[in-house]
Amino acid sequence: MTPPLEDRKERASAWFGELRDLICARFEALEDALDGVNAERFAGTEPGRFEGTSWTRPGGDGQEGGGGGVMSVMRGRVFEKVGVNVSTVFGAFSDEFRKQIPGAADDGRFWASGISLVAHPQSPLVPAVHVNTRHVVTTKGWFGGGADLTPMVEDETDTRDFHAAMKAACDAHDPDYHPRFKDWCDEYFYLPHRQEPRGIGGIFFDYLDSGDWRADFAFTQDVGRAFLDIYPKIVERHMAEPWTEEQRRHQIVRRGRYAEFNLLYDRGTQFGLKTEGNVEAILMSLPPLAAWP
Amino acid sequence: MTPPLEDRKERASAWFGELRDLICARFEALEDALDGVNAERFAGTEPGRFEGTSWTRPGGDGQEGGGGGVMSVMRGRVFEKVGVNVSTVFGAFSDEFRKQIPGAADDGRFWASGISLVAHPQSPLVPAVHVNTRHVVTTKGWFGGGADLTPMVEDETDTRDFHAAMKAACDAHDPDYHPRFKDWCDEYFYLPHRQEPRGIGGIFFDYLDSGDWRADFAFTQDVGRAFLDIYPKIVERHMAEPWTEEQRRHQIVRRGRYAEFNLLYDRGTQFGLKTEGNVEAILMSLPPLAAWP
Repeated sequence: MTPPLEDRKERASAWFGELRDLICARFEALEDALDGVNAERFAGTEPGRFEGTSWTRPGGDGQEGGGGGVMSVMRGRVFEKVGVNVSTVFGAFSDEFRKQIPGAADDGRFWASGISLVAHPQSPLVPAVHVNTRHVVTTKGWFGGGADLTPMVEDETDTRDFHAAMKAACDAHDPDYHPRFKDWCDEYFYLPHRQEPRGIGGIFFDYLDSGDWRADFAFTQDVGRAFLDIYPKIVERHMAEPWTEEQRRHQIVRRGRYAEFNLLYDRGTQFGLKTEGNVEAILMSLPPLAAWP
Repeated sequence: MTPPLEDRKERASAWFGELRDLICARFEALEDALDGVNAERFAGTEPGRFEGTSWTRPGGDGQEGGGGGVMSVMRGRVFEKVGVNVSTVFGAFSDEFRKQIPGAADDGRFWASGISLVAHPQSPLVPAVHVNTRHVVTTKGWFGGGADLTPMVEDETDTRDFHAAMKAACDAHDPDYHPRFKDWCDEYFYLPHRQEPRGIGGIFFDYLDSGDWRADFAFTQDVGRAFLDIYPKIVERHMAEPWTEEQRRHQIVRRGRYAEFNLLYDRGTQFGLKTEGNVEAILMSLPPLAAWP
């Protein structure tokens, strides 16, 4: 039985906050666990800790609207910069924008809640990662999200394990999910002007409304849990490895591509900027240092 | 008397190449002239020299089309990265794009030639700069372009002199030009999501077709000449000044804003990527190093 609308919203937004807390605790533990040459590299620097900043969204254009979120950022020894945003916002889409959104053409009101994370590690041997899950309600309602990995120096084991984790999360719900959502991810995280993918992919899904809200929500939760399990393992695998200046330079150039994707193509960035989201939170995904040499 | 179309195209594209040669010679002379602490900073590094790469544009979508250009890049001691592109391309706009272009709605064929320069100096005390002039022919024909300055550490004298130089170039042709083109520049080089201008502005003009081709071409040439005169003077004023790490850090963060503008809003970037221009040339404007800390 589908819970009432207000319960659905509350449960979804509560989960995104809970997942954020789990992720932050796990990432801080990675900061604490760093030792060896890479700990020496940051001698005198304390293990990173997340710092949260709350923001509220002003209602725009005389429309009813508001909400807000918390942007949590950690600048550490393992993670050069990692941002985790949770937000719950509501209001009305602009006339221009509502045509593009399911269920909003005639009634532009929306409610949206989600979590979004981008991690840029210090080490070029530790992959960057992005994960995002969300619940959106207009006159329709759906889940969306995904997780994708961007290694700067590719490692076959990481690639295999990341895809396997996403596949397991998908397969537990629907055997069709993984092939569809993996392809969707490859298609989405692609830079046409460079004719290259952003990373090795993962999964991407949107407008998920199977008719069974509980099942769709459980799947969305499992994507978050799968990320929380696999990504820290990949970080642990590489975080103590020494790296060269040449690898670091390569990482910083690859991060330029990451910035290109997010600014030229990312729908979340466009959505956020067009719905008067928090600019600092939206652009938190941009790399701490990037080069176009 | 208006020259025949082929003469107009040839004269415009020849000028853009000539202006490129003048600019490159002047910029290389600045590289040679560096002395004092900032020359010591780059001890062992030769003064920068432009390196040119030619490219040709493939005709797309079975449409007739082609052309190409030369991308000239210098990585030096005064200029961390400066790119100058000249290109002359022709073909047909995609159906989606042609509605946005004057004179192209019913006949999407175009010819476009221009010069575009972006300079990112090493010193945070030397302003970054952008200049671009172009001639576009569809069933209509017009000139466009402008020049704008992006100081990282503002200097009132630079601002005043840069605006005065642009004003003089404008006033020699039409007293209405400078007020219009200065406002247009302020409006264009603005980051709405940050609610901040990209720099201190300059001039920006487009679709210039007064009915007197010779006058419009002469004005476009004068904008190039005004840039060639004033910008190197501003560079000379500051290039020997010592700078602090804090100023350098500030510069690199401001360059992040520059990348945001170019990727999120710049029409030239969008135009280039949509008309299958040379990606390396289009994205040459991106800063050698940028930070989103």
